[in-house]
Amino acid sequence: MAKIIVGVMGPGDSASEEDCRNARELGRRIALEGWAVLSGGLSVGVMDAVSRGAKEAGGLVIGVLPTADRQGASPAVDIPIVTGMGSGRNNINALTSDLVIACGMSAGTASEIALAVRAGKAVILLTSDEPAIRFFQSLDPKKVFPAKDPAEAIEIA
Amino acid sequence: MAKIIVGVMGPGDSASEEDCRNARELGRRIALEGWAVLSGGLSVGVMDAVSRGAKEAGGLVIGVLPTADRQGASPAVDIPIVTGMGSGRNNINALTSDLVIACGMSAGTASEIALAVRAGKAVILLTSDEPAIRFFQSLDPKKVFPAKDPAEAIEIA
Amino acid sequence: MAKIIVGVMGPGDSASEEDCRNARELGRRIALEGWAVLSGGLSVGVMDAVSRGAKEAGGLVIGVLPTADRQGASPAVDIPIVTGMGSGRNNINALTSDLVIACGMSAGTASEIALAVRAGKAVILLTSDEPAIRFFQSLDPKKVFPAKDPAEAIEIA
Amino acid sequence: MAKIIVGVMGPGDSASEEDCRNARELGRRIALEGWAVLSGGLSVGVMDAVSRGAKEAGGLVIGVLPTADRQGASPAVDIPIVTGMGSGRNNINALTSDLVIACGMSAGTASEIALAVRAGKAVILLTSDEPAIRFFQSLDPKKVFPAKDPAEAIEIA
Repeated sequence: MAKIIVGVMGPGDSASEEDCRNARELGRRIALEGWAVLSGGLSVGVMDAVSRGAKEAGGLVIGVLPTADRQGASPAVDIPIVTGMGSGRNNINALTSDLVIACGMSAGTASEIALAVRAGKAVILLTSDEPAIRFFQSLDPKKVFPAKDPAEAIEIA
Repeated sequence: MAKIIVGVMGPGDSASEEDCRNARELGRRIALEGWAVLSGGLSVGVMDAVSRGAKEAGGLVIGVLPTADRQGASPAVDIPIVTGMGSGRNNINALTSDLVIACGMSAGTASEIALAVRAGKAVILLTSDEPAIRFFQSLDPKKVFPAKDPAEAIEIA
Repeated sequence: MAKIIVGVMGPGDSASEEDCRNARELGRRIALEGWAVLSGGLSVGVMDAVSRGAKEAGGLVIGVLPTADRQGASPAVDIPIVTGMGSGRNNINALTSDLVIACGMSAGTASEIALAVRAGKAVILLTSDEPAIRFFQSLDPKKVFPAKDPAEAIEIA
Repeated sequence: MAKIIVGVMGPGDSASEEDCRNARELGRRIALEGWAVLSGGLSVGVMDAVSRGAKEAGGLVIGVLPTADRQGASPAVDIPIVTGMGSGRNNINALTSDLVIACGMSAGTASEIALAVRAGKAVILLTSDEPAIRFFQSLDPKKVFPAKDPAEAIEIA
C-alpha cells in the first residue's frame, strides 16, 4: 500500500540556523511515525536538513529535484525524482504530499504552500513570520495551521 | 523581435465583480501600450475578463491553459498554449511574463505571484487584500508594488 | 478566435543543411496560409530556420523554450513561452499544435512526434529516414503521413 | 545513498498478455537485484504488472502518475509521485531512471524511450516490434539494446 508522504518545504540557501534545526527535528519525528518525507531534494537548507533528520531515524526520503540530473541532491535522499523543471516541480511537491509542513519562509516555499492550499491539502506553518501566517490562513482558515515547534507540528499532523 | 508580455493573474470562479471589471480595464490598457497579455486562458473570472479587455482594444492575447485541449479556453484568446499540467503551468506564466499583475487574490494567484518573485520578476498587486500586500512585500520589497486601480498599475508597469 | 497553430519539430545542433532549408521553406509556406508557427524556440537548427522563414513571410512565430529565460531564443520568435522544463516542454509542443510537421529526425524530435500521436494529432514526416517513417506509421497509420518536400507537406496539411 | 532506479515503460490499456507477463517477470527480477522499479504508476497494463511483480518479490515500487491525485494508481505502488501533468510526466520517468526498459510498444512508450535516449540513458527494448527496434537503434546504436526475454533484459542491465 502507498506510503503516507509528508512534504516539508522551506528555504534553500537563505534558510536560517533555526529553520535547519527545526527541519532536522521534523525529519526525525516524521520518520519515527513511519511516514515518508518529501522535500525539494537539494543538499542545501531545509531540504537537506529534513532529509538528514529522517535518514538518521531510519526513514524513507524522497527528493523531488528541480535539476535534470542527480548532482546537487542531498546525500540523505533515497529516492531522487529528477524533474528538470526548476520551480515547475513545486506543484508536484504539493500534489504528492498528503500533508505539507512549511519550515521557514521564502518565495519558493510560499508558492508550494499556495499550491498545496489550491490542491486542498492541509498545511502546517512552522514559522514566526506573522504576515505569512496571517495571509495563508486568510486563503483557507480550515486547512492552514500554525505550529510553534516541530513537536506541535507533528502532533497536528 | 519578441513581444513584451504582461501576465495578469487572478481568481477564476471565485473572482469578484470588481476583480473582473479591473481585469477588463487592465487588458484594455495593456493592449493600448502595445504589449501582449498573458493569462491562465480559461473562460472564467480574471482570465476571461483580461482577455476580453485586451481583445476589445485590438491586443494580442496569450492563454496558458491548465487543460489538455482548447476546450474551456476564453473565446478572446488568440494563442492558446495547451499544457495539460494543471497548476503546474503556473510557473510557465511567471517565467514567460516580463511583469506580473495580480488582480484579486486566491490560492492559485498567490502561487503565481510567489513564483514570479522567485524568478526575480516585478509584481504589481491590484487588490485590497492587506494581508496579501503585507506578505508579498515582505518577500521582496523592491519588486512588489501595490496599486489602487488599473490606471496606477499600468503607470507603474 | 484562436489561431491555427502548426508545430514544426526537428533537430537543433544536429540539423543538416537540407533540414534547415526545408524548415525555412515550411515556415514561409505556413505563414502564407495565415497559420501561426510553433517551434522549440531556440536559435539553432530547425527551430531557428522555421522561425526565420515564417518571419520573412510576415507570420506569427511562437517559441516554446526549454530554458528558464529568453536567452538563446531565436531572434525571429514573436511569442517566447518560457517553460524552464527542458525536454519536459515537448508535450506542450504536441498539445498546443493543431498539426505537427517533423522536419528531419533526432531523439527529441522523435519524442515530440510520439507525444503528438499519443494526443491524437495528425503528423507529417518530412524526412528521408525510412526506419522513422516505418515506425511512426506503425503507431498510427491513419494519422502519420510522409511528405517528400515542404510543398507536399503543406498540401497535406 | 540514492537507490538504483530502473524504469519499465510499456502500454497501458493496449498491453498484450505477453507484455504483462514479461513486465511482471521484469518487476520480480529487478526487485531481486535490489533495485527500485519506476513506472507510470496506473493500475493498467505494463505499469500495473511490473509494479505487482516487484512487490511480490519485496521490491520498492515508484509510480510517477499522470493524474492529479492517487486515484487510479496501482495498488502495488509504494511511492506515488502525483504530477497532474498527463504525458508531460514522461520526461520525469526518463530523467529519474538510471536505465529504461521498454516492455511492448505504444505511442506513449515511444515518447519515453526517445526522451531517455535524448537524456543519454541506456535503453533495453523487450519487444518483437522490428520497426521500433530498427528505429530506436538508429537514434543511438551505442545505448539501445534489444532483448528477447526478461532474463536477457536483466542480464544486459
